[in-house]
Amino acid sequence: MPPERREPREAALRHCLQIGVDAIKAGRSPLDVVELVVRELEDNPHFNAGKGSVLTSNGTVEMEACIMDGNTKKCGAVSGISTVKNAISVAKLVMEKTPHIYLGFDGAEAFAREQAFSDGMETVDSSHFITPENIERLKQAKAANRVQIDYTQPIPKAEEETSLPNGDSQIGTVGCVVVDGYGNLAAATSTGGLVNKMVGRIGDTPIIGAGTYANSLCAVSATGKGEAIIRATVARDVAALMEYKGLSLKDAATYVIEECTPERTAGLIAVSATGEVTMPFNTVGMFRACATEDGDSEVAIWHDEPCD
Amino acid sequence: MPPERREPREAALRHCLQIGVDAIKAGRSPLDVVELVVRELEDNPHFNAGKGSVLTSNGTVEMEACIMDGNTKKCGAVSGISTVKNAISVAKLVMEKTPHIYLGFDGAEAFAREQAFSDGMETVDSSHFITPENIERLKQAKAANRVQIDYTQPIPKAEEETSLPNGDSQIGTVGCVVVDGYGNLAAATSTGGLVNKMVGRIGDTPIIGAGTYANSLCAVSATGKGEAIIRATVARDVAALMEYKGLSLKDAATYVIEECTPERTAGLIAVSATGEVTMPFNTVGMFRACATEDGDSEVAIWHDEPCD
Repeated sequence: MPPERREPREAALRHCLQIGVDAIKAGRSPLDVVELVVRELEDNPHFNAGKGSVLTSNGTVEMEACIMDGNTKKCGAVSGISTVKNAISVAKLVMEKTPHIYLGFDGAEAFAREQAFSDGMETVDSSHFITPENIERLKQAKAANRVQIDYTQPIPKAEEETSLPNGDSQIGTVGCVVVDGYGNLAAATSTGGLVNKMVGRIGDTPIIGAGTYANSLCAVSATGKGEAIIRATVARDVAALMEYKGLSLKDAATYVIEECTPERTAGLIAVSATGEVTMPFNTVGMFRACATEDGDSEVAIWHDEPCD
Repeated sequence: MPPERREPREAALRHCLQIGVDAIKAGRSPLDVVELVVRELEDNPHFNAGKGSVLTSNGTVEMEACIMDGNTKKCGAVSGISTVKNAISVAKLVMEKTPHIYLGFDGAEAFAREQAFSDGMETVDSSHFITPENIERLKQAKAANRVQIDYTQPIPKAEEETSLPNGDSQIGTVGCVVVDGYGNLAAATSTGGLVNKMVGRIGDTPIIGAGTYANSLCAVSATGKGEAIIRATVARDVAALMEYKGLSLKDAATYVIEECTPERTAGLIAVSATGEVTMPFNTVGMFRACATEDGDSEVAIWHDEPCD
């Protein structure tokens, strides 16, 4: 992977680790911290969420996000966000200010406008999210009649497309899981979805139990081919294997990624109430990072790097 | 419950049992049978799905549906359907004709229009779905500033509302689970959601693992307060307890309804690959029915009736 694609993402992950660790040290709740970190990733155009989201077959952005608190199992989710800078904050407001968990499309946008004076709510023209790289990705996906999940791959030349049938490798969906010193857990995920997705397509990210899940045992955020992750209820199954089969976080997550999802479709980040961390993936690589209050931190992309 | 509310629903359930049994005897797949039965329930104005769907706070209908095949785990889902007579058939077409699992709102409606010539696709004016009873229910829910899950309850008089805080009792969401003689399983669920729900609200019905789930062990369709069902990943947890803890279908479903969801929020119907049937609920009642090819059939509403 050329440095110009790797370095800005690694730098962003290091910056996010610092933001997260500082916030935890300052006594912010895990729920607040996952929102804070995911907002930062949404604002960074090098990931497929917020600014930098990939485009639908119509050339539009339809962003999705989800947040969940482990102890209370309170959660919020949105789909079809197109003019709010940080979809994750809309998801959190759905959780906090409505009797519902999940709002989609026009209703989610209308709710966001009603909440315009809440902290962290900023609406923008939908052109804010669209980068030249994603216009090019859509053009090439359309030329190949292909729905692409790959985001951080180089934009393939036409003749190379057949070698990337599933747009395999590092996926651009962003997520964050946090545990504090008391074992409180939270998870958050945000995405622009798939390049050339149909208008209205909902992926795994906003689905509680698929792309995002937290309870009192663990917090999980997944990335990859949304349809495979939905079918395997990936995030809930990591927790269910701990709860119903007594597995460790690492064994549970490894089982789900190796046995329950097809090759080259899924990855996840997870943390347990006792501070165990695991980040398995069955794709070629996955940008990932972790840090503790003690000052340990790691950033990695490929398999067999320290941050596994 | 007065006969005029009970009898048409019981008659509809008996009619649906007959349709389902006939179709299974004719060799139709469980996936086809659950679609067929749910279409019938959608067309019946006495249930909260299709014609008879409850209204959003704007007085509109936004229907949701989901279908899943056990052996292949193929599935399809839609939200925000407002002009297609049978949302369940749109969900099945999403499964069959797109690279995605789940389409919502304008995108789902646009897809349905593209599929106008598929079997069973019929578009109608959205007024088709709206009944005088549901206009009255919305009026009363708005007067009481209440989001109501209750559908088959009598429309409460203003002074009775406090006795129905959660609109408890029989819920109008419809679902069907089927197993054939080879152990093939399928599940389908369809709903209008909650009375006075926010525009854009997505409930448990279309969420794989919450309101609907099937694998090679069992098929599950849930009903009740969607937010409670999403949080507890009800349908997947029934299957996960069988898969990871070795419970029987009945023990798994009982555990989920008694231990994982708050009182008066949830019920489900489930069948296993070996033909075990269970239909637990923690609400006051739940309209439910089951039948076998041998000619056994039961219809029930309350606890302690034969059909448990």
